[in-house]
Amino acid sequence: MKILITGGGGFLGSRLAKALLARGELGGRKISRLTLFDTAFPNGSPRDSRIEATTGDVAQINLSPDTEAVFHLAAVVSGAAEADFDLGMRANLDGTRRVLEQARRCARPPRLVFSSSVAAFGGKLPKVLDDSTVAAPQTSYGTQKVLGEYLIADYSRKGYVDGRSLRLPTVVVRAGRPNAAASSFASSILREPLNGEPCDCPVGPKTGVWLLSPRRVVEAFIHAHELPAASWGAGRVVNLPGITASVAEMLAALKRVAGAKTAARVRFKREARIEAIVKTWPARFKTPRALAMGFRADDSVEAVIRDYIADEGIKLA
Amino acid sequence: MKILITGGGGFLGSRLAKALLARGELGGRKISRLTLFDTAFPNGSPRDSRIEATTGDVAQINLSPDTEAVFHLAAVVSGAAEADFDLGMRANLDGTRRVLEQARRCARPPRLVFSSSVAAFGGKLPKVLDDSTVAAPQTSYGTQKVLGEYLIADYSRKGYVDGRSLRLPTVVVRAGRPNAAASSFASSILREPLNGEPCDCPVGPKTGVWLLSPRRVVEAFIHAHELPAASWGAGRVVNLPGITASVAEMLAALKRVAGAKTAARVRFKREARIEAIVKTWPARFKTPRALAMGFRADDSVEAVIRDYIADEGIKLA
Repeated sequence: MKILITGGGGFLGSRLAKALLARGELGGRKISRLTLFDTAFPNGSPRDSRIEATTGDVAQINLSPDTEAVFHLAAVVSGAAEADFDLGMRANLDGTRRVLEQARRCARPPRLVFSSSVAAFGGKLPKVLDDSTVAAPQTSYGTQKVLGEYLIADYSRKGYVDGRSLRLPTVVVRAGRPNAAASSFASSILREPLNGEPCDCPVGPKTGVWLLSPRRVVEAFIHAHELPAASWGAGRVVNLPGITASVAEMLAALKRVAGAKTAARVRFKREARIEAIVKTWPARFKTPRALAMGFRADDSVEAVIRDYIADEGIKLA
Repeated sequence: MKILITGGGGFLGSRLAKALLARGELGGRKISRLTLFDTAFPNGSPRDSRIEATTGDVAQINLSPDTEAVFHLAAVVSGAAEADFDLGMRANLDGTRRVLEQARRCARPPRLVFSSSVAAFGGKLPKVLDDSTVAAPQTSYGTQKVLGEYLIADYSRKGYVDGRSLRLPTVVVRAGRPNAAASSFASSILREPLNGEPCDCPVGPKTGVWLLSPRRVVEAFIHAHELPAASWGAGRVVNLPGITASVAEMLAALKRVAGAKTAARVRFKREARIEAIVKTWPARFKTPRALAMGFRADDSVEAVIRDYIADEGIKLA
């Protein structure tokens, strides 16, 4: 089968690609080609005969008509979409629409997994959100993700694609460097200290984060694809499970795993622009729908940190 | 002030235009120009020096930079958007986006009232919907209306427009001829008998309709415009009040107002295509938000019928 990952050069896309290549199959069918599409591949792409890496603008992407599976992860992140409205609309709305229109023209309606976000929620929220909470995004990024969800639901209803949208918690710990996402701090406060670097935390210690590790996210993408359409019912969106942790709790877990000296590398240097975005995101959810469908959260922040250390081959001092 | 009505040649748009011309002002400011934009003006446009009637494709509309008020009513209706997906996407999504992009380029952010629809709701619904019910449209028309709402909310948050979206109940009684809306029957079963014509009703007598008269809808458009931004809060969408009536109750009201002979002109001839769309629409709501904001419903189906008879100058036999 032929698979496309948009955003295939990014952090989650490249990890998903590796996981798919390692499995060799998806939904019981052998993977013959894995196309990675992105604006750039700063870290290269896997050396594998099944891989095809293509650069371009997602709003102009062309799908091979025999594409059977799409993981649509390409996006301009929250901070960047807020700073440049037109850029966000082009990548996140026009891009998603282009992917859907191309998928509609495939030989058979592809199964499509879309990475939406907890940024779908905002405004006046209950203390604990659940599967009936109305999406009311307070950022352009969140709005564009919700628009994508509704488009995918209607394209699925029409039979043009078989779509599944996952509202991702904040992904922690992201490897690499900080990015323009307003949530970038949630990884930085763990990653930089583990790399022996100082880190300025732009939000206060009580700030809550609803988080999921890269391992669980990649599992969720694959699980979402493999679930039969009947498991989704009329609703094509699911809030993924996660765990709630405050910045203070994350730093305490870091201290337990890596020691006081490492945790002490984080200092608070609050930034109003970041806090203004992050405070609109919810931190507590009940996710019975996702759990019933077989999605799962991490066991603890400590487990998340240990997985990161193992995945990145970090040696603790 | 300069006002634009998209869909200004349509049933609601032309009535709104007449109401605005008769008032002469909006929000306490004198109306100097009223631009009506539509694909066609089959019934002409009001003869008034303030009127400018323009034909075109809403997805290519240009707004005069001194436009201060927009009523965005132009849409491809539900049945037509379901039959021709691309046509619906162009008019209802691209059209709304074009209006917003043009509004963003005005000298000052215009106040914009958008006619959304009860078709935003569908799927598994509570018996009585309320202001916290999640939009889950089961038609492309409904999806496109929800996309418009989210776009308007974000353009408003960014300060590009001052937008207000009204989810209209089914408008009863529409004058004129049946149209391609799946809800067309709700007016036909009252209008055709009053005009001395037979009518085939495509849905069963128990079918419930959440309805609002053209008089109340036009009032709601103007009221929505005149409310200060603070009345809307972060949410830019409101479910308008209405009344619930079954087809049988509507025919009973018709009989009381216009006699048994008139009501007997309706026969049931069920159509699966129409029933499949209409059954996804909810019929019962609680609308505390709208009522608190000063929107109001009709008193009864009989009052709706009497208003129609008065507005159209119909003489009962």
